[in-house]
Amino acid sequence: MDLYKLMKNRRSTREFQNKKFPDQKLQLILQAGQLSPSGADQKPFVNIVIDNPILKKKIKDNCESADKKYYEDASEWFKKWMKKKKISLDKNFLIDAPFLIVVAGDTTKPYWLESTWISIAYMILAAENEGLSVLTYTPSETDFLNNLLHLPNRFEPVVIIPVGYAKDKASKETSINVEERVFINKYGERFFY
Amino acid sequence: MDLYKLMKNRRSTREFQNKKFPDQKLQLILQAGQLSPSGADQKPFVNIVIDNPILKKKIKDNCESADKKYYEDASEWFKKWMKKKKISLDKNFLIDAPFLIVVAGDTTKPYWLESTWISIAYMILAAENEGLSVLTYTPSETDFLNNLLHLPNRFEPVVIIPVGYAKDKASKETSINVEERVFINKYGERFFY
Repeated sequence: MDLYKLMKNRRSTREFQNKKFPDQKLQLILQAGQLSPSGADQKPFVNIVIDNPILKKKIKDNCESADKKYYEDASEWFKKWMKKKKISLDKNFLIDAPFLIVVAGDTTKPYWLESTWISIAYMILAAENEGLSVLTYTPSETDFLNNLLHLPNRFEPVVIIPVGYAKDKASKETSINVEERVFINKYGERFFY
Repeated sequence: MDLYKLMKNRRSTREFQNKKFPDQKLQLILQAGQLSPSGADQKPFVNIVIDNPILKKKIKDNCESADKKYYEDASEWFKKWMKKKKISLDKNFLIDAPFLIVVAGDTTKPYWLESTWISIAYMILAAENEGLSVLTYTPSETDFLNNLLHLPNRFEPVVIIPVGYAKDKASKETSINVEERVFINKYGERFFY
């Protein structure tokens, strides 16, 4: 396994095969999420795995309602990007993927949001390592998740990650334009040429 | 290279050897930071590599002043944790490490903070992959970095990452208590036993 190849090959997926995968893969992804560094080593996050179909449907319905409103109010730029990417308002990935992982941060802990996103990155790479695809889907409203999942109020859900086999694994090369975003000693002074 | 071994072995480092490392390692770390997924694929972050000793010294002085005030106002819990971890207010790692990477997020982009921390996680793992150690140091005040690095105001520095060889690579096993933080279908319902 080459770390950089793993990072390069990873693609977000919105269409999942309706196909189970071995439990061990899910366990490895969840364990990876607990290995990340966090502010004052507090690991200020919990993961709720969802496999219950009724719960998945409820989550999908809530996300679709919340996002509909969000998109109506969104900027023209964002709407164009959605159109270009052919991203629809249907969130079928929330029922198609065999598992969802809801990640929630403990807002009472220092650097909870930063630490939670490091943990999410670890899970993204672990999924790729297991031959699975994910989407880091950030619903525009999340209070309903606290209710549905009995999550105490101090936890703020930040992402829902559907995990499964991608329908079509995109193979497009990423253009990373590293030279435009990495500088030396001052902004604008290129590090890479 | 085993991804999970990499994640397990990684430790934050506060004491660096005053020893250079090959440029290529730094390049690989910086490139890894650009391979991460980001909100609407906007890559809302820039990295400024610092190797100028005068600049490093200025950054250290500014961080020490800012943090001194922060620690005075901190909770007793946090002070105890600092003491237990033997973390002093001196930020020698900011001059000892051969390179610092300042990561700043573009606050005008969607999900800029979340995306920036995924990118930081990628760099953390890349450093470990190259046999180097880092600290994800979050200074309590960062406006001075905008000035020193000529960073436009829309960028908010979120972390300074010293990169180098650790003086003593801690080898302590992490206890991850995964069963306390991973649940199935509702909070409190354990996934792991």
